[in-house]
Amino acid sequence: MNPTFEIFSQGEEIVTGQVVDTNAAWLSEQAVAMGFNVTRHTAVGDKLEDLIQVLLDISNRADCCICTGGLGPTSDDLTAEAVAKAFDLPLVFDGIAFAQIQQFFNSRNRPMPECNRKQAMLPQSSIRLANHIGTAPGFALQNGRCWFAFIPGVPSEMRHLFLEHIQPMWVDRFVLRPSKLITIKTVGIGESDLQERINTIEIPPQVQIGFRAELGEVQTKLLFPGDYPQSQLENLTYSIAATIGDTVFAIEGLGHHSGDLVSVVDQLMTAGGHTLAVVEIVSQGLLAAKLIGVSWLLSAVYEQSVERLTQRLAINNLDDLITTSKAIAKAVQKNTGADMVLIQLTSRDYYINPNNDKAVTVTSTLLVNSECNQTVRTIAGDIKRKQHQAALLSLDLLRRCLQGKEIV
Amino acid sequence: MNPTFEIFSQGEEIVTGQVVDTNAAWLSEQAVAMGFNVTRHTAVGDKLEDLIQVLLDISNRADCCICTGGLGPTSDDLTAEAVAKAFDLPLVFDGIAFAQIQQFFNSRNRPMPECNRKQAMLPQSSIRLANHIGTAPGFALQNGRCWFAFIPGVPSEMRHLFLEHIQPMWVDRFVLRPSKLITIKTVGIGESDLQERINTIEIPPQVQIGFRAELGEVQTKLLFPGDYPQSQLENLTYSIAATIGDTVFAIEGLGHHSGDLVSVVDQLMTAGGHTLAVVEIVSQGLLAAKLIGVSWLLSAVYEQSVERLTQRLAINNLDDLITTSKAIAKAVQKNTGADMVLIQLTSRDYYINPNNDKAVTVTSTLLVNSECNQTVRTIAGDIKRKQHQAALLSLDLLRRCLQGKEIV
Repeated sequence: MNPTFEIFSQGEEIVTGQVVDTNAAWLSEQAVAMGFNVTRHTAVGDKLEDLIQVLLDISNRADCCICTGGLGPTSDDLTAEAVAKAFDLPLVFDGIAFAQIQQFFNSRNRPMPECNRKQAMLPQSSIRLANHIGTAPGFALQNGRCWFAFIPGVPSEMRHLFLEHIQPMWVDRFVLRPSKLITIKTVGIGESDLQERINTIEIPPQVQIGFRAELGEVQTKLLFPGDYPQSQLENLTYSIAATIGDTVFAIEGLGHHSGDLVSVVDQLMTAGGHTLAVVEIVSQGLLAAKLIGVSWLLSAVYEQSVERLTQRLAINNLDDLITTSKAIAKAVQKNTGADMVLIQLTSRDYYINPNNDKAVTVTSTLLVNSECNQTVRTIAGDIKRKQHQAALLSLDLLRRCLQGKEIV
Repeated sequence: MNPTFEIFSQGEEIVTGQVVDTNAAWLSEQAVAMGFNVTRHTAVGDKLEDLIQVLLDISNRADCCICTGGLGPTSDDLTAEAVAKAFDLPLVFDGIAFAQIQQFFNSRNRPMPECNRKQAMLPQSSIRLANHIGTAPGFALQNGRCWFAFIPGVPSEMRHLFLEHIQPMWVDRFVLRPSKLITIKTVGIGESDLQERINTIEIPPQVQIGFRAELGEVQTKLLFPGDYPQSQLENLTYSIAATIGDTVFAIEGLGHHSGDLVSVVDQLMTAGGHTLAVVEIVSQGLLAAKLIGVSWLLSAVYEQSVERLTQRLAINNLDDLITTSKAIAKAVQKNTGADMVLIQLTSRDYYINPNNDKAVTVTSTLLVNSECNQTVRTIAGDIKRKQHQAALLSLDLLRRCLQGKEIV
């Protein structure tokens, strides 16, 4: 079992929501990568009794803990005092810490305010963690079975002290076996469908499985113990991916096919030497925006009125979306010289009142040289969700076509 | 003393740092504004015994608690089961919740997977919180002195359920003295510049001031006690806004000018009866994408090659960006009939190698009827940041022009 790791963030600005606690996420990622089992985040404000209680609880529960914040010079910075009370360790003046704080002000040609002297008072027998980019030194100590490190909440100082002092110290102190994380990425399938398909496969109990839906993709995460045999890990991963099917667009953690849907499409387009022009009526710029930085997108157009678009391209036929799309695609191909052209159209109702939440039908057409692939799909939700879904549908149509998958 | 409020976030993705817990900050802000005293945030992963222990601890400590996450259909979604075990409340099939889940799938023409049935199992005698934008219903219940509400972790669903159900319910159940929150929103100025300007004003000690940078805007937050006189509140707010200057685009909390930069521009464009066409070379679709749902955007174009664009528009002059932009704007105005045309151009180097992190100069041109406003600004950072900054520059140029502010 990997040692357990908790994160304790202190500060009124965090519990009142004025600041988002990005430190906790950053520290957690570092700890997981090192092989710790991160079990809990806690945040409280500047109240001494809360700080003391949380410190005591964590010392009874975790193998190690990083505490951020509350090390400043002002009266609401209470961490050292709380440690002293919780663990019965008097605060002791640390001459080296004090010299470093003075040096910080000297090097900036500023007088040291008297209140900064407080930052040199450290709990007895704690290990000082020198801070080269701010005034607050950190400190580390053991209480019961738990190792604590206390560092400032300013993100740059927090990272500096973690990487400089805590990471090397704890790599030495703990026996860590980093786990292996595999992420299977899918588009166009929901979490519950994924779960149903994966239920047909037997997953060994030591493999943790989790799902994560992000805008644009659903990830199936497999966390293997560090000593899990690589061949078995690969077999299980590939058999899960095969069971999920064509909606899998990437597998991360096996050294290939990584990245999000855009980067997978980018690799395929670049490898094939293709160029693309798009007309995106439903996603309204979002598809082009997602493709920022690729070399193969020649042009992207949004038009509020399909009539104006067809007029400009000198196309007459407006009988149905399927034939209109084809005609637009061919005209755009001629104008731009792109070998691939992607057209998104939808019914006229959509433009007249786009802000209602009714489902709409999107006709997507992908012209590759002279061959047309078309799909018709219904998308629902508010207008932003429809916009996003339409961009995804287009990207996935590209991906399926480039990978030779079935167009659905 | 205001009632105490805790936030409990559940999910491996949070404790392992794959996701930053922005929900906790958003909910805290709402709770503080309602008049609660937010005392603690806790996050744990998908482990049943941890969930049960945290629920029991909170029920002994707080007056109310919002729990996010763990309500999905898959096997790692354990919240309802943890509630059942912690508070000894059997899970009961809720026919109305089930019908709502079925309706969600029906409206999307998709069959409901069997595992979604689990989401209709709610703790006995809990209050169902209908979710109109996702499958997971929330629920609320009292245990000991503590009122709990359980809602999904997907931010849009979380906000919807909080605003729709929990906020009105708890305003009724608790005696609250809400503070008053004023948010001054700016674009194009950094936090430290804001702080320096505001330092010149005397802020009474009972007014809390905070800053928050979000993509696209920096917010200055003023939290006033509930009994702070309204006229003094307004005077202080307006004097701070005046000190900050023209970068202020909205003040929220005084009953007017609310929303983000897009909605402020939308109000101004709609009120003026304007229409817009854009050519966005640097933001590459992002400006159009941000304007989803507005009625006045007639067309948006991205072209990789400015040469091809000028050829298509039959413009010869390519000597400098200023005159080229004007010529493009006039041609686009003629083609689209829009009374306002916005053109973003940049130097040719950018298109040749857009993925380096060098600063680029963006020439923005806004043609209003026959009058041209132009700005030239340098933007830096990676390509996504430049894309975003270019879209913001364009929006802010529109905003300044519509509000009659100086064009900088």
